[in-house]
Parts: sequence; C-alpha cells; structure tokens
Amino acid sequence: MIVVMSHCATEEEIKAVSAWLEREGFQIHLSRGVERTIIGAIGDRTRLAGSGLEAMQSVERVVPILQPYKLASRTFQAEDTIIRAGGLEIGGDTIHVIAGPCAVESREQLLQSARIVRDAGATMLRGGAFKPRTSPYSFQGLEEEGLKLLAEAREETGLLIVTEVMDTRTLQLVAEYADILQIGARNMQNFLLLRELARLDKPVLLKRGPSATIEEWLMAAEYIMSGGNYNVILCERGIRSFESYTRNTLDLTAVPVVKDLSHLPVIVDPSHAIGRWRYVPAMARAALAAGADGVMVEMHPKPAEALCDGSQSLTPANFEAMMKDLRRFAGAMGRKMP
Amino acid sequence: MIVVMSHCATEEEIKAVSAWLEREGFQIHLSRGVERTIIGAIGDRTRLAGSGLEAMQSVERVVPILQPYKLASRTFQAEDTIIRAGGLEIGGDTIHVIAGPCAVESREQLLQSARIVRDAGATMLRGGAFKPRTSPYSFQGLEEEGLKLLAEAREETGLLIVTEVMDTRTLQLVAEYADILQIGARNMQNFLLLRELARLDKPVLLKRGPSATIEEWLMAAEYIMSGGNYNVILCERGIRSFESYTRNTLDLTAVPVVKDLSHLPVIVDPSHAIGRWRYVPAMARAALAAGADGVMVEMHPKPAEALCDGSQSLTPANFEAMMKDLRRFAGAMGRKMP
Amino acid sequence: MIVVMSHCATEEEIKAVSAWLEREGFQIHLSRGVERTIIGAIGDRTRLAGSGLEAMQSVERVVPILQPYKLASRTFQAEDTIIRAGGLEIGGDTIHVIAGPCAVESREQLLQSARIVRDAGATMLRGGAFKPRTSPYSFQGLEEEGLKLLAEAREETGLLIVTEVMDTRTLQLVAEYADILQIGARNMQNFLLLRELARLDKPVLLKRGPSATIEEWLMAAEYIMSGGNYNVILCERGIRSFESYTRNTLDLTAVPVVKDLSHLPVIVDPSHAIGRWRYVPAMARAALAAGADGVMVEMHPKPAEALCDGSQSLTPANFEAMMKDLRRFAGAMGRKMP
Amino acid sequence: MIVVMSHCATEEEIKAVSAWLEREGFQIHLSRGVERTIIGAIGDRTRLAGSGLEAMQSVERVVPILQPYKLASRTFQAEDTIIRAGGLEIGGDTIHVIAGPCAVESREQLLQSARIVRDAGATMLRGGAFKPRTSPYSFQGLEEEGLKLLAEAREETGLLIVTEVMDTRTLQLVAEYADILQIGARNMQNFLLLRELARLDKPVLLKRGPSATIEEWLMAAEYIMSGGNYNVILCERGIRSFESYTRNTLDLTAVPVVKDLSHLPVIVDPSHAIGRWRYVPAMARAALAAGADGVMVEMHPKPAEALCDGSQSLTPANFEAMMKDLRRFAGAMGRKMP
Repeated sequence: MIVVMSHCATEEEIKAVSAWLEREGFQIHLSRGVERTIIGAIGDRTRLAGSGLEAMQSVERVVPILQPYKLASRTFQAEDTIIRAGGLEIGGDTIHVIAGPCAVESREQLLQSARIVRDAGATMLRGGAFKPRTSPYSFQGLEEEGLKLLAEAREETGLLIVTEVMDTRTLQLVAEYADILQIGARNMQNFLLLRELARLDKPVLLKRGPSATIEEWLMAAEYIMSGGNYNVILCERGIRSFESYTRNTLDLTAVPVVKDLSHLPVIVDPSHAIGRWRYVPAMARAALAAGADGVMVEMHPKPAEALCDGSQSLTPANFEAMMKDLRRFAGAMGRKMP
Repeated sequence: MIVVMSHCATEEEIKAVSAWLEREGFQIHLSRGVERTIIGAIGDRTRLAGSGLEAMQSVERVVPILQPYKLASRTFQAEDTIIRAGGLEIGGDTIHVIAGPCAVESREQLLQSARIVRDAGATMLRGGAFKPRTSPYSFQGLEEEGLKLLAEAREETGLLIVTEVMDTRTLQLVAEYADILQIGARNMQNFLLLRELARLDKPVLLKRGPSATIEEWLMAAEYIMSGGNYNVILCERGIRSFESYTRNTLDLTAVPVVKDLSHLPVIVDPSHAIGRWRYVPAMARAALAAGADGVMVEMHPKPAEALCDGSQSLTPANFEAMMKDLRRFAGAMGRKMP
Repeated sequence: MIVVMSHCATEEEIKAVSAWLEREGFQIHLSRGVERTIIGAIGDRTRLAGSGLEAMQSVERVVPILQPYKLASRTFQAEDTIIRAGGLEIGGDTIHVIAGPCAVESREQLLQSARIVRDAGATMLRGGAFKPRTSPYSFQGLEEEGLKLLAEAREETGLLIVTEVMDTRTLQLVAEYADILQIGARNMQNFLLLRELARLDKPVLLKRGPSATIEEWLMAAEYIMSGGNYNVILCERGIRSFESYTRNTLDLTAVPVVKDLSHLPVIVDPSHAIGRWRYVPAMARAALAAGADGVMVEMHPKPAEALCDGSQSLTPANFEAMMKDLRRFAGAMGRKMP
Repeated sequence: MIVVMSHCATEEEIKAVSAWLEREGFQIHLSRGVERTIIGAIGDRTRLAGSGLEAMQSVERVVPILQPYKLASRTFQAEDTIIRAGGLEIGGDTIHVIAGPCAVESREQLLQSARIVRDAGATMLRGGAFKPRTSPYSFQGLEEEGLKLLAEAREETGLLIVTEVMDTRTLQLVAEYADILQIGARNMQNFLLLRELARLDKPVLLKRGPSATIEEWLMAAEYIMSGGNYNVILCERGIRSFESYTRNTLDLTAVPVVKDLSHLPVIVDPSHAIGRWRYVPAMARAALAAGADGVMVEMHPKPAEALCDGSQSLTPANFEAMMKDLRRFAGAMGRKMP
C-alpha cells in the first residue's frame, strides 16, 4: 500500500500517518519527492480497519499495490482449477455448452428443450425456476414445480442442471435439485447469499454484475472461497455501457484477463449480454477464441412463444448450426467438445 | 406499443404479426411507410407474455410507448406523495437531513454521532447494523446488537432510525427496530426482498442501483407499491461511469426527472456517490437546488478511526458548517428546515 | 417517425402538431390509445429542420423509426462492399492484418518493423507520423519525415501504408503518402475533416470514437459516403466503460451488429482497446471469430524502448505466434490469409 | 512514479528495471514486500519517453503519483484565476450567464435572442456559426455570415460573444469576431487546434469531452496553457453514461473537484448535457450551488422552430423565470449577478 501525502502535509502530519501505520502493524518506507512525500506500507492490508487513512486531511490518496483477493488469484494457485460435477470436468481440455430456455415454462417445453440441446452436444441444461423479473407484472417462474421438472429432464437426458438461486431462504431447496448453482448478475454482491454458498460443496456459477469491475467480480468469488467452497465458475454476461443497440456490452477481454489474474474457469453467456438472438452464435465463437472454457446460451423450441426473453433465444435449428461452428473453433483452440 | 417490421417482411409476415397481436388482445393500426411497415398496438402491455415478438425474424424491433410503471407515475397520481413517519413529513415543504456513521461500531460512537447530528438539525439517524462488505475480510457489522444501539439512540435523541435491510431472513428483525427501511443500491433489484417489503407498512428508502436507469429504479418502486406499500422514498446515490476520480457519478439530473415522472419523494446521498468527504457539502447544496426533498450524509465523530468508509465521512465541524449552508439553500428554494 | 403526445395534450395541441407535420411534408396517421395519442409521420425525416417538435410542451417524445443513415445501410446495398487498394481486397474472403509500431520513430525502427510484419503475413503497415498526444510534454511524431519513411517502407516491402490524418490542413500531405487514410477515434466526429475526405477517392479507415454509439459511427461513415467517397472501412477500437483494468472495453459484438446493419467492411484494433499487449492475441483471434475482415495490431521491435504506447505493442516473437494462430482461425471461419 | 514488479520477477529483472530508471534520470527507492517488490522512482515523469516500462514482462504495472498537469494545477497556482474579457471578470465574485440559441439562424432570430437574454441579465451571447452536425443532412450553420451577425448583436447589446471554433483553418476567422473562443466537446482532444489556441491571447471556453475524465480535461487545458495562453475557462457539459433518459449525464461533482485540483474558472452547460429544456433551470441552480462560476444555457425565441436543438432551448418566459431563480442562488452562495 502506498500512501501519497498531500503536497501541503507538514512534517508532523507525515509522522502522524507513519506512526498510525506502524501501530496497525505495517512496516514503512518513506520516500520524499520534490512535490510529494509518499509512504510505502508493507503488511497485511486486510487487517486495515477501514479507509480511515483517506479521511485524514494530510493524505491525498492511498494506492493499493496487492490485489485484494487471495484465494482466487494466480499468485495463490498457479495451475488452472478444474471443477468436477457429475462426471464432467469444467476448466480442463473440454469446452462445455450450457443451454436451454430462459425459464422453465412447462414439462413439455423443458423436456423438448433438453432433448434438443443434448442431441446437439450440450452437456448441461439451464432453465430458471425462480424468475423475479424487472416488472412485477411479468411471469415469475414455476418455483419448486420448475425444479422438479429440471430434475426430470436430468433423469431423462443425463444433462447436468444449472439453475439460479435467488436468496438464502430458497438456497436449500434449489441445492437439492441443481448440479450447479447459478448466482445471477444482480446477486453478485449479495454477500449474505455468497456466505451461505461458501458452506456448501456444490459448484457455483458466478455471473458478473452489470456494473462490476473484474476486481469486484473476483472479490465475490473470494467470498465463496474464503468460506471453504473452492468450486467457483466465473461467467461473463455483459456490462452496462452507453451502447444501447445491444442490451449490455459483452466484455470478452475479461476472459483472457481473468485467466491471467485467476485460476478459476470462465464461461461466457452471450444471450443475456446481447439480448438479440441474431448475434449470439458469432459471439459464442468469439468467446471460445478468447479462451473461455464454455458458453451458456438460450435455446427455446418456439422463441416467439417464450414467456421470458424470447428475443434472445435461438431456435433449435440456429442452435444446431451454432454447435457445429463451435466444434470447429474448439478444435482451432486445441480443445475438445463432447 | 409500436412494432417495426423488417424492411424485407412479406405481406404474410405482417399479417401473422397482426393476428398474433390481436389474439393477445391488442387493437392494431397498420401504417405503411416507404421503407418499413409499422404496426401500432393499443392495449395492456403488461398482459404481454414475453418479448417473443422480437424473436420473430420479420420484426425489426418493438418500441414501447407507455412507461412500464403505473402506480409510481405522475399519470397515476398528479400530486406529490407525502410520507409520514414518526411525526415527520417527507416530500412536503420541509427538507430533511438523514445523518450518521456508515456503520454502527459501538454504543459510544453511535450515541455521540446521534447527538451531534440532532444538535445540528438532522431529523433522522443513519447507521448500518448489517454490513456485508466488498471484501470478506472487512468488518461485517454488529448485527442485532447494532439495531439495539440504534433504538437506544432514538430513545435518547428523538431521531428517527434509517437502517438497511439486507435480505428476507432478517427483514422482520430489522423492521422491529427501524422507522424507515433502507434498501441498498446492490439490492435495488432483489425482487424477492421488494415483494416482502410490499407487505409491510413501513416506509422504504429505495436506493438507486449503480447501473440502474431511472426507469428501472421506478420499476423497483413499482414492485413495492404493487404489493400495497405506497410509502416509498427514492434515493439517488450515484451511478457507475468511466470517471474514477469520484467513486460514482452523482446523477443529480435524476432529481428533477424523477419529480417529473413520479409523485414519490426523492432524496440524495452524496457521500456514497462521491466517496470523498471534501466534495460532500457542495453536492448536498446542489441536491437541494435540484429539488431534492432531503439529503443523507455520513458523519463520524472521528472519521480516521471509522471501521467503514471513513474517507467519505464528515467530521462534526464540517457537518455543522454544511447544515448552516443547507438551511440557506432550503430557504432559497422556498422550503424549511427544522 | 412516431410522435408520442403528452397524456395531458389537448385536442387543439394534437391538431397543431398534426398540422405542423403535414406542413413539413409528412403523411400522418393518428392513433388514440387509452392513455396517449400517438402520431405516426411518414416521410423524409432528413428534411426535418431540427428537433423542434420535442420543444413543444404537448409532445412527450419523438421516436425515430428509420435509421438516420442511408448509404451506409444494408437496406441501401444488400451485398458486402469490397474495397480495393493497391491490389488488395478488403471485405472479401481474405483476412488482412495491419501491423506496425504506434509511431514512426526512426528509419531503422520502421524498416525493421515493416520487414517483420510482412514476413509474418501482414499486408499493411501502420505507423503514426503525426502524434498529438494526451500530454503536451510527450513525443509528437516525426510529421512529414515520418510519412517519407512510411513511403520508403512500402517501396521496400510492398506493404500498403495506413496512417492517420489529424486535420484538414495536413490532409493533402498525408494523402500523398498513404494508401489508406486513418481517422482516429478522437476525430470520428470531426465533420469538417470527414467532409473533405468525402472528396478524395482514397479508402478511409474510420475508427469508432470511444463514446460513440454504433449509430453515430455509421453516421460518420455516412458523412464520408454522402460526399461521394464510398471506400470506408470501419474499425472497432474499444469504448469507454467503468472497467479500468483495460484501457477501453473492446465491443466485439459491434462486429456482427455492424455487419448486419451495414455493408461496409469491419476490422478490429485490439491493441488500443486493451492497452496491454498480453491480451492482444486472444482478442485478435476473437475478432476473427466474431466475423471481422481483419485486425490492426501494434508490433514494435523493442517495445520497452518505444516512444509511444510500448505497453500495448507485441514483440516480434509474440507477433509471429499470433499470426500463426490467426491463420488457423481464418480457416475455421472459411476465410483465407495471404 | 511507483513501479510494481510482477510476483515472479527475478533479481536480475529488478536490477534491470532499476538501472533503466536511473539511466532515465530517476532516483530510485526499492521496497521489498512479502509478495511484490516495488520501485519508487522520483524525477520528472514528463521526460519518460513512453510507457515502455509496462511492456517489460517483469513489470506488473506503473502507478503515477503526481498529476500529469502542472500549469493547470492548484499546486502550481494556489489562488483562483480570474479571466478578464471585455470588462467582465470570470472566476471572481460575479456569476455569469451565457445564453442564446444553439445556432445563428437569421438576423432577426439572433438580435431578438440577444435582447431577451441581455434584458434578463445575461452578460454573454452564445450562438453557433459553424454547425457540423451528427447528420450530413442537417443544417450546417451560416458560417461567416453568422459571425457577422454575432458581431452586430454585440454592437447593439453590449453582450460578449462566445462562439465555437471548429478547426485550425477557420480559427483566425472566428477569432476576429469572438470575444471568447469555444472548443466543443468533440474537439477537446483536437490537439492541433489546442496548440494553435495556445498562441492567441483570447480566452478559451474548453468544454469537457463526453468521454473525458477530469484528468484528461485538465490535460487539454494544460495543452493550451503550456503554449502561453493561460485564459482557459472550463465548461462541464455532461458525460456519456448508460442513462438514456437525458442525452448525457451532467457530472456536477466535477465542479467542486476541478475547483480543488485547479485554479481555473468552471462553468456548466446544462442544456447540452440534458437535452430537454424542462430540467435545465433546476440544473442551472444546482450548478451554482455546486460552486460554478456561471452557466451557459440555450434560449430560443421560438424553440419549436429552431433549426437545431430546439428540444433543449428555453422559451423567453422560462429563461426569465430561471434568471430570477439564479439570482437568489447566487446570493445564497455569497456571490453577485449583474
């Protein structure tokens, strides 16, 4: 940590800040420039109570040097994490495709979707059972009934189930049915929920919040890991920007960046990021080329009749064409698709 | 709702979309331009299942005409909502200042803060009891013990208590102690929590999410109102932008915009938006000038020792100076401060 | 164009707006909903003087239906534009790589760069001769001397020259030397410059501005095309977002979107978007997978000694490795690389 | 400047970077933490050729400590700059209002506008003579004819003239007529133009670019000042964010921030930032409360007939009401209005 003193800081103020840092257990290095004095503070920043330092009139700013996350970092673990779930390995040589409808709407819709995506090569089925939506007047999901249908689809197709858990109260229920627990973008910093996930041993698919920096995303992963659950899969799903032609701006550069900073697997959800099915296959390809360990896409047997997000769902035919494409790009990356 | 057909839509496709809309209960108007056919659809959009229309190849885009919120809109209620809590009126002639530390840290810290802010003219005390923080290694709040201290501070000073509720499980507990329930920015779209707040009759202070549009913010208010709780106070607290000198970008224009679109009271929290105490008093003044019904600011007896967000907390002296200033600006707006 | 009347618009106001539109040459369709009256206006929006309509108290908002650009749109021209320059075809089957240093620094540096990128398979050489930089205290380019060195490099290697033109005064000079004129991101809306480019028949590489929407970018292309120069190559180079780990956020989704809305070729510059060489090869691959017609990357013989943007320049070895990779991805896309 | 070495940097690499820095004239301080070695480098960063350091594999990142601008900073000059133009003082006790139409459209429109704004208390007249617009099909301004009309309006009303200069070729022409040269938001980083302005002694009104950080804005001022022209007035006019209800997001916090970092005067243009006249008066008041030295607003005798930006122009009546308001707020700030 570097403390940059104000250009009008007095000698006593510099001493006071130095003393404060030493009391907090830091070893300090003073460096006097022509215009500013800076204090290098070596020690465990997590022990620092607050951001009290910047409240001092004499301190211009505090520059952190180390990443605030530890367990999620490459410094902590150099080799890639491979997450095992139901016989699959995520983060290894194999590219995985998670596919299915936005919401579980009915037994027929879900089973049909499951068969289509399995036949085309997906290994996991997605589908929301709890769907609190932007509008209180929209379809809110089948809840437990939806979870049961997901389990039935797994039974029939062998696909693993990825479904979202919305809050601490329904966590146990969802965990009974899901193979991988999805944390939605809006819940990325729901720390009470993250803390409880930390106590389970189920893999967690952690979506990036629409206004979360890469560092905040990795800090959310750290929350889960610091409680003991190391099975975190990161999922880039677009950030909010001024561009409004697409729903969000898919930040694909986050893929190689996160692979560099962290050992955790990364997948990409182009459907939610873009909000328009037309551009999903191109960006799924691009995700693999950027180094993602898989993609998560929406497919609906009849998008025009979807109760939720039909505009971003691929038809079965478009999905199958995309899967053929992806197989070629997995090959170009030296990876496999089942 | 306007449906813009693709420029290569065939006559059959136009008929198919028209028929679909009529089946969903819309009355339609066809308008054929030189390059595009557009279909005006009159009816209750909330009955529309999904965004399935945009999944059709022949549809270029769907343009909503009406605001998606109803109860929160000025169209629904022309006169300003005035919220009554513990003898105070929020949204009327009187400007209210909510002040206090970021987190409840100790009995002494809280009671001292409460006296200082009351003596300077604040009418409500803020302070977090549950503080799940960006880092799992930071101070996480005193929880129920903190709520008890807030109640004690109310007892002694007569200030109303504004404190954050983090999730559905602790809602009942927090509601027992708080006069106004704060929904934090990260929870603005925690719809399960909003739905439960809708069943209480406590006023809710709804912070705008850092990546929420004004429309999404009003939709979150609509969630609470649609369940029967009309006591919603909106709180602008900064949105995320590329400017990194301040923590967030305080969107003060949202104040007159929301006053125009909605009848709900609006207050402004410059402390969290900016993240640096130096600029808080200027922006609190600007908030009043923009038409806010009050401000919420952080004050700590000793910011440099704060366990949380000391960098944005005013000292007692700075707080008192700001309050004098605000009184003058409330006057210039033709409003009162207690 | 759809004019949405305010919910309190009177019958006279609706008539006044209708009359105004008819006077401006629009054919109108009135549609009265329960809450709002909307007026559909069919006609040539470019004849509309200003945005005066929205100044009327009775008008809530004006919703454009047609894209504001014409010549740049797929509606105007369905098949892809292929741009011919010095024997190359850009926008056809062949993927092109434009490479070289940020700035022309010396004869040796430039010629060495040119040989390296040509040997690895690039077909065009980039290099700035005019480099007005963020800081007035930084290196500002070799100016005409730099242009001469670029011409010499072309002579020796056969590479086409892509270099930036900064303003109208130096346009003729730069046009004498360059094969393709680059418009930098900061100049995307320098309309006086665009108007002059419109009179040349040189191809223009038009970088997207860091805060430009896709529509504004296509409007900038329209400026050049409306003056008679149809040889516009679009270049995505990152937009500004809150994420600060990378310099900008590369918006790769813009590639398939622009390919859908327009017939113009699109290339991607990952170097400037990201600002860190480490992630450039992954994003160059992803650009091809997204459908780009080429990439533009920075390569410097000795990045650590670069006078400009060394942090984003690939070394010769990294560049060569990337080119091998790209060849494989061009193949996976069914395209060629020379 | 702090150089943070990679956690896997070897002893030789640390030595190599240290030696490199010393060769460049820096005095260095080595500080070895548990996980990283950091090198403090004291010296004149402007002498640093490029960002070559970050191109080295062993360097994780470079953290600048000093602000990159000098002449524009409070460190360089502690007291406020007061700019004198035609008998007025900008940046002193007096609040100035610059008002007028977006574009000069006709003699009658301009003279009428000038009289209205002068009578209501404005001291300067704005109006564009060169109006290259987003669309090549829109009104592009009266050019020199417009400048002559502005001069005539000055003659008649005594108002100073503020008008935009678009490029280096028309700079001399515009400078003959204008009292204050406005640099538009899109030209904030047109460094060739800034360099030429630096050689004049006319005051410059420098608008913030829509995607410019505060630091980049001050660097643009530095460009002008480093060439010898210290008469720079900064103008906040909104930054681009995801919120689309307003055209841009007015960043009023930039006012106290810039007043803290710099000695230059700051004014605010709410009209362009917001794009809707309804909210302009509230934000003009808020600008004064935030500490601005003035505001710049659009007023048109008949906004609905404006050839440009009518939607953001106040009517004469609304303008006069706003001026009365502002007078009260100038008073609350302890400042005067003429």
